[in-house]
Amino acid sequence: MEAGTFSPIQSTSYQVFFGFSAARFKALTQEFRPTNIYFLSDSNTAEHCLPLLEEEGVAVPSSERLITIPPGEANKDLRTCEVIWSFLHKKQADRHSLLINVGGGVITDLGGFAASVYKRGIAFLQVPTTLLAQVDAAVGTKTGIDFHAEKNMIGTFTASRAVVIDERFLRTLPRGELLSGSAEMIKHGLIADVVYFRQLAAELPAGLSAGLIPTALIYRSVEIKNSIVLQDPYEKGLRKTLNFGHTAGHAIETLSHLDGLAPIRHGEAIGVGMIVELFLSALVPNGLPVRVRDDCAGFLFGLFGKHKIAVADYEPLVEIMKNDKKNEGRRILFTLITSIGHSTYDHAFTQDEILRSFDYYNLLFE
Amino acid sequence: MEAGTFSPIQSTSYQVFFGFSAARFKALTQEFRPTNIYFLSDSNTAEHCLPLLEEEGVAVPSSERLITIPPGEANKDLRTCEVIWSFLHKKQADRHSLLINVGGGVITDLGGFAASVYKRGIAFLQVPTTLLAQVDAAVGTKTGIDFHAEKNMIGTFTASRAVVIDERFLRTLPRGELLSGSAEMIKHGLIADVVYFRQLAAELPAGLSAGLIPTALIYRSVEIKNSIVLQDPYEKGLRKTLNFGHTAGHAIETLSHLDGLAPIRHGEAIGVGMIVELFLSALVPNGLPVRVRDDCAGFLFGLFGKHKIAVADYEPLVEIMKNDKKNEGRRILFTLITSIGHSTYDHAFTQDEILRSFDYYNLLFE
Repeated sequence: MEAGTFSPIQSTSYQVFFGFSAARFKALTQEFRPTNIYFLSDSNTAEHCLPLLEEEGVAVPSSERLITIPPGEANKDLRTCEVIWSFLHKKQADRHSLLINVGGGVITDLGGFAASVYKRGIAFLQVPTTLLAQVDAAVGTKTGIDFHAEKNMIGTFTASRAVVIDERFLRTLPRGELLSGSAEMIKHGLIADVVYFRQLAAELPAGLSAGLIPTALIYRSVEIKNSIVLQDPYEKGLRKTLNFGHTAGHAIETLSHLDGLAPIRHGEAIGVGMIVELFLSALVPNGLPVRVRDDCAGFLFGLFGKHKIAVADYEPLVEIMKNDKKNEGRRILFTLITSIGHSTYDHAFTQDEILRSFDYYNLLFE
Repeated sequence: MEAGTFSPIQSTSYQVFFGFSAARFKALTQEFRPTNIYFLSDSNTAEHCLPLLEEEGVAVPSSERLITIPPGEANKDLRTCEVIWSFLHKKQADRHSLLINVGGGVITDLGGFAASVYKRGIAFLQVPTTLLAQVDAAVGTKTGIDFHAEKNMIGTFTASRAVVIDERFLRTLPRGELLSGSAEMIKHGLIADVVYFRQLAAELPAGLSAGLIPTALIYRSVEIKNSIVLQDPYEKGLRKTLNFGHTAGHAIETLSHLDGLAPIRHGEAIGVGMIVELFLSALVPNGLPVRVRDDCAGFLFGLFGKHKIAVADYEPLVEIMKNDKKNEGRRILFTLITSIGHSTYDHAFTQDEILRSFDYYNLLFE
């Protein structure tokens, strides 16, 4: 199926387009008439993805227009924001400037945040070039940077002007990156659409092996996420279902960055987090049937079960969870699924129950 | 007139209350039911204004709940935000926390910004304790910090939960602080209300001498500002009229901080900026009559005409203006008044005209 055959998805105040082309680029930038256009990218993306823009007839921006930062989550911080703001300040970028973020979730989250507060907010376009960013980060108005190793601790809810998704950007990605993005797609199936979940279970493993994720699968993920965001843009309720796997997953990811040994990719941590939270999902009254829990956990474990959670990390993980944005007061809150395609949120568990959920994951290794 | 007789002013999503009391404090905090309440203040304000809260029966917060920063515009920066965020992070402050900003414009702008992006936004209350903050900074949803010596370069549009104004906070202020706040009040008269302007011209000089600004005058300023903000919250048009005096004034203020010699107070710089922009107001077709220009300039000069603009500073001032948030492209834009009480915006002038406006101000010294 040609990318061009996927019609745009309407979000809050912006659209998600499928397929990048010079005509689309021209239409999007002309519609807004910015005084100046700047690009933000990381050095990896600049090397692998900007040439695709050039192939499509969009001139690769000169260093006068392009801010390039080093790749990696460690750079999604205030220091890098200062680099971006200093660049814009030096160029005398005014309020009617446009920032085009080309890259993975680090670039779209960071660039979105930097733009959302520069001169109290300039416009930005999201061009996500990783699977994770396409199906998650770039859709839904959340921007953010990490602070004190806490993910997205500083950020805003700000809509981009538009999102442009193109499957061709994914062709240069290593398998680990595709796997990372797959976790969020599986999450969308688990929380909202059993048919989509079955489709992913059938098609994803082969797609990952071939290094090709069909646009149709990406499209459905964006549809699901967008439909939830539209119903609850500021995460007062329903949007919390998107946090399935994330309370445990964020803690695992954060700890892996803190100990400085082997940082784990976001999606892979979420994959493990979903297994942990499937266990919790089966603990509540009228919760997830144990058989479904084990089936889903088995599927996720096949993709994401790479490292045990060290027992020495159990307590530190709970400590990190205590500072989760989603908590209220001192209660650590989780999103659960009650069956495949149905989810519920704001469930608190005791420390003992949380520790047992780590055990459940570790037992899958035996 | 008792403070209690001034009814609350309704703004976008919040109210401005006049008169601080334990009952009001309790009502405001109970309405919102925060999980935790934190206070932000500077050391001067903590010394002079927190005791008033205590007199009114509000327990002065312990160091567990109070973030105190050094006073002064130099601290309205990213480093101080990091101090605030680190404090909140350490206390595991969640999304449902409330930050109460007690202080001048530095505290309300900075605290508002820090709160507006912490965990993508926590609630905050503004308790402005300087005249300037009461009639300007705390009303109207703008938050911000300075960056590269550029005022409010980084910020958001975020409404506070409420603003509480109390004339008693002003009693400990030096005359220079009252003078600084007076500039914005005079501006409100000049751009929107000739009757109010005449009242200020009649009553302000005596009020400043006595160190007492009647609440009725403060109330009218808040009404004027609020009515403009309500009509144009995001400064697409009408709100730009509030920038009268600010294109030149901000540049004068910024330069005084850059050269590190004698930083000039915000309002005092705006006072001079208004004289400069009165000159520009008379340059346009059907502009301000020269006689009105000179009358108003004379009144302002009596209050704010303390320092000449050095000729060596002319070009640096224009350079700073080129980076003003209000510009579009390379044009430096000004708000003008066409008569007392009527204003117009987005007027560009040549560099030569801007330099002549500095001359006009300097000539008043002769």
